[in-house]
Amino acid sequence: MTKSIAIVADRIAWEERQLIEAGPDLGLTVEWINDESLCLGQSDVTALSRFDAILLRSRSYTRGGLIATLAEESGSRVINSARAINLCENKAVLRTALRAANVPVPEFRLVLSRSDFARALKEFAPPVVLKPVYGGMGKRVALIRDADAAHSLYDYVEDLGHAFEQACLVEPFLAGGASTRCLVVGDVLVGVAEFTTGGEDWRNNAALGNLSRAAADDPEVTKIVNGVLDVLGPGIYGIDLFQTSEGYVVNEVNHAPGFRAVAQATGVNVADAIGGYLQEVLS
Amino acid sequence: MTKSIAIVADRIAWEERQLIEAGPDLGLTVEWINDESLCLGQSDVTALSRFDAILLRSRSYTRGGLIATLAEESGSRVINSARAINLCENKAVLRTALRAANVPVPEFRLVLSRSDFARALKEFAPPVVLKPVYGGMGKRVALIRDADAAHSLYDYVEDLGHAFEQACLVEPFLAGGASTRCLVVGDVLVGVAEFTTGGEDWRNNAALGNLSRAAADDPEVTKIVNGVLDVLGPGIYGIDLFQTSEGYVVNEVNHAPGFRAVAQATGVNVADAIGGYLQEVLS
Amino acid sequence: MTKSIAIVADRIAWEERQLIEAGPDLGLTVEWINDESLCLGQSDVTALSRFDAILLRSRSYTRGGLIATLAEESGSRVINSARAINLCENKAVLRTALRAANVPVPEFRLVLSRSDFARALKEFAPPVVLKPVYGGMGKRVALIRDADAAHSLYDYVEDLGHAFEQACLVEPFLAGGASTRCLVVGDVLVGVAEFTTGGEDWRNNAALGNLSRAAADDPEVTKIVNGVLDVLGPGIYGIDLFQTSEGYVVNEVNHAPGFRAVAQATGVNVADAIGGYLQEVLS
Amino acid sequence: MTKSIAIVADRIAWEERQLIEAGPDLGLTVEWINDESLCLGQSDVTALSRFDAILLRSRSYTRGGLIATLAEESGSRVINSARAINLCENKAVLRTALRAANVPVPEFRLVLSRSDFARALKEFAPPVVLKPVYGGMGKRVALIRDADAAHSLYDYVEDLGHAFEQACLVEPFLAGGASTRCLVVGDVLVGVAEFTTGGEDWRNNAALGNLSRAAADDPEVTKIVNGVLDVLGPGIYGIDLFQTSEGYVVNEVNHAPGFRAVAQATGVNVADAIGGYLQEVLS
Repeated sequence: MTKSIAIVADRIAWEERQLIEAGPDLGLTVEWINDESLCLGQSDVTALSRFDAILLRSRSYTRGGLIATLAEESGSRVINSARAINLCENKAVLRTALRAANVPVPEFRLVLSRSDFARALKEFAPPVVLKPVYGGMGKRVALIRDADAAHSLYDYVEDLGHAFEQACLVEPFLAGGASTRCLVVGDVLVGVAEFTTGGEDWRNNAALGNLSRAAADDPEVTKIVNGVLDVLGPGIYGIDLFQTSEGYVVNEVNHAPGFRAVAQATGVNVADAIGGYLQEVLS
Repeated sequence: MTKSIAIVADRIAWEERQLIEAGPDLGLTVEWINDESLCLGQSDVTALSRFDAILLRSRSYTRGGLIATLAEESGSRVINSARAINLCENKAVLRTALRAANVPVPEFRLVLSRSDFARALKEFAPPVVLKPVYGGMGKRVALIRDADAAHSLYDYVEDLGHAFEQACLVEPFLAGGASTRCLVVGDVLVGVAEFTTGGEDWRNNAALGNLSRAAADDPEVTKIVNGVLDVLGPGIYGIDLFQTSEGYVVNEVNHAPGFRAVAQATGVNVADAIGGYLQEVLS
Repeated sequence: MTKSIAIVADRIAWEERQLIEAGPDLGLTVEWINDESLCLGQSDVTALSRFDAILLRSRSYTRGGLIATLAEESGSRVINSARAINLCENKAVLRTALRAANVPVPEFRLVLSRSDFARALKEFAPPVVLKPVYGGMGKRVALIRDADAAHSLYDYVEDLGHAFEQACLVEPFLAGGASTRCLVVGDVLVGVAEFTTGGEDWRNNAALGNLSRAAADDPEVTKIVNGVLDVLGPGIYGIDLFQTSEGYVVNEVNHAPGFRAVAQATGVNVADAIGGYLQEVLS
Repeated sequence: MTKSIAIVADRIAWEERQLIEAGPDLGLTVEWINDESLCLGQSDVTALSRFDAILLRSRSYTRGGLIATLAEESGSRVINSARAINLCENKAVLRTALRAANVPVPEFRLVLSRSDFARALKEFAPPVVLKPVYGGMGKRVALIRDADAAHSLYDYVEDLGHAFEQACLVEPFLAGGASTRCLVVGDVLVGVAEFTTGGEDWRNNAALGNLSRAAADDPEVTKIVNGVLDVLGPGIYGIDLFQTSEGYVVNEVNHAPGFRAVAQATGVNVADAIGGYLQEVLS
């Protein structure tokens, strides 16, 4: 029987379009629901109650966890789980949870104030990265090469940042900014792609091609991915790794991952994989 | 043997002073540690490792959960637990968790946008209250008596609020703003006081005196308090109730409660109660 | 000979479209220039140097004065003048300048802090209006009917407003929110329309129809408009009046006025009037 | 006869203390008035009307011009003049006014958006400085050495800056950050000191000693200072110069200058000089 899926998101981007179009062949009707007009809060029937499952893909880093929590309480089946989304939305808490489960993560310091910042700059010599605990899309992730220019950057955090925006991480600058992205659907690693940086912005990156075979054979990557899944539970994740001299570390996990670059680099049909996972979950 | 306690807070206010002074007679050395200069993040030894327990009393609504989570992972004994603090810091998630456990809470709507706000104003006729999901001390808790003036208030949320500050609750204005505050230490309800509003700000309030005997005899209050403790675990909490025609509902739970007004209204020595609880926990 | 006009604005709205379309018949080529990509600062040639005149219609209340000042210094003919735009962008300074020239304005207090706010609430009994010194489009213009709810509104100014956003005016609520809008082109009052408030937002308003004949005959309106022009110089302005028991007062002057409602209410072809004025200025 | 002076400022710092203490010997009673509780706006009597003169020393870059404008309109004698203060508070407008008067200033671009920023980075190769148009005390003045790290800094402007905070200047990094500070009282250059940068923050600086004799003999400095005074009128100013291969340029002018460092470097009694100037103005 056809199942109805709500993609809750701020807009229909390439990924959402793929999922909506792939739906019928997979026995799913997939509909976009704007995450701005749910007005959740009722304990029984909500704007989401009529769907068999909610695929939560809010790009806003402030909405996903709230919506998932309220929707789950009202009886909706939410993918990813509220618990997983809440963990992914908080870089400090996620790293702590992973480290406690023996999944390797970068060293970091929680910087709540200028005195924390000054101390972190002493504990990790530049180059270091300053990033918000809450945030996404690489926004405000700043590379600090020179300590003497760091405090004017911090002025912006201190003068213009509100409340949660003053919670930052400082960490060593790893892997020259290159990263390895693992796309997980359910409990399967469906694709891996490597990205390098370059050009006008150190955060720019370009996919280097299909690494899925190598990654499938790399027991270190597999072990890390399984470790992450042990903490978060099965779901749809983009797991971002840095390669260091001591092996891979998990930089962050995206609970509503873009998958265009990985799909193109690896040839994997990610929308089909997600549809299959939804069918499996709902059966 | 004397135990060492760190009170992690932004400053030493009346409550912290009471605890520091009460310490020696209770076999505790109590020291204030500024929550701005911890630079946490190491997995082993941190600035808090030398203490037997951490009493977390950050008034900042953005620091408590982060500090508790990182300190617990590094092996510190933190009171309240990171889980309880994280729940209390998020009014939407706390209400959801309480409601799921059959603890009565006010009706509310999660307002993430102006369209949510307009809809909530239709679902609950004014007077209503708009409050931030994250926040404390009554700040930005606004009473809306007239719908036609509500949208200029919302302009401030929309134009000046960042990210998490745009997550609000709208709820009916209950009990004329009066509230009943229950102070819990461990799993004991040590004092209850009732507050009414009045004067130049509808949020002003004044303690009405000792209600602890009545409350101890009120099975409804006891049941609600126990319900909250079942969700949060034992700890030190200020539980704020509204009395409605259908009984009490839990407005919010403060994980670092002020206790001066309750202490004065009821004559209870709260600092001693907390010290005793810390001894019990550490024994 | 055809003159070239740049409309510097954030976008092409109804007014800009009218002006662009009316241009050719008036011997003008009118082009939209995005106010976001001028990168001004050179003292000689700028992105605006190739135009005979700059019609500045930035809706942003922070860009107009800066762009006009720099463009004028680099030799551009800017309409309105930088001096007029800078005056219009600052409600406190504009009122001061008008009052010094004996043009009637509402009473007001400059509120820079909560203590100013509390004092202004005592000096003017509610209902009062709180509005930002800098701003436009009615945003954050709040009607305060009850003093006891005023301070939670001010929390938003204090907690979320930055720097200039903490500069506000408080003034009596005049004319039940109704206003009279006078559209001036050059030194001619080309149309007047009256607006009332109502509906879901007290700031909503609807044009009541053609008042231009009455206004042309109303020596009080004419005198006020001429008084404003004596201060600002000739230009294109929307002058917003409140009618009080002691006569009209100037609420504010818009230096980049919308003119659709006035055009429709009065039948005046505003675009033609502006085109004629530009021709006159450039001849 | 003794004259009464109000120092309107946010607090009493070293400079204000010096002025208050120097008053009696100079025939002045000097009183601090908190710039937060003036509630100005009346056209006749204000909280400042009882003083013979107002010395405006608000460190806030958003209050000085507003207070000066309203106080002048109400009949107060304000030093510096509202016009001078408003010019000094806006780095873009001040530079334009100086350049129009043939006073040399650094090249700069007005950056209102990311596209402006990208273009300015192309027009001036790094190292460049990004600074807010409105601001003081060196806050958020950022040195950009590497273009590829510039855009994450700009994220903070774009994501966290409100309205006026998104108005920035980009300029070449001049003189290695060293500057020459000229303190003017009335129309007299009373002291000059040179500052270099260094240490943990590139904005740190240390006075290098008494340069007043050399400066008094330097016709280039004298000419620039006189040029600034021709634009601003006589008053109390800190004029900040950069030395370039083509001579000095005026970086900025502070209308409420700190003068401790210049006083210590040169031995000049600045408080006496200011007192004398006030006497002269009021005589």
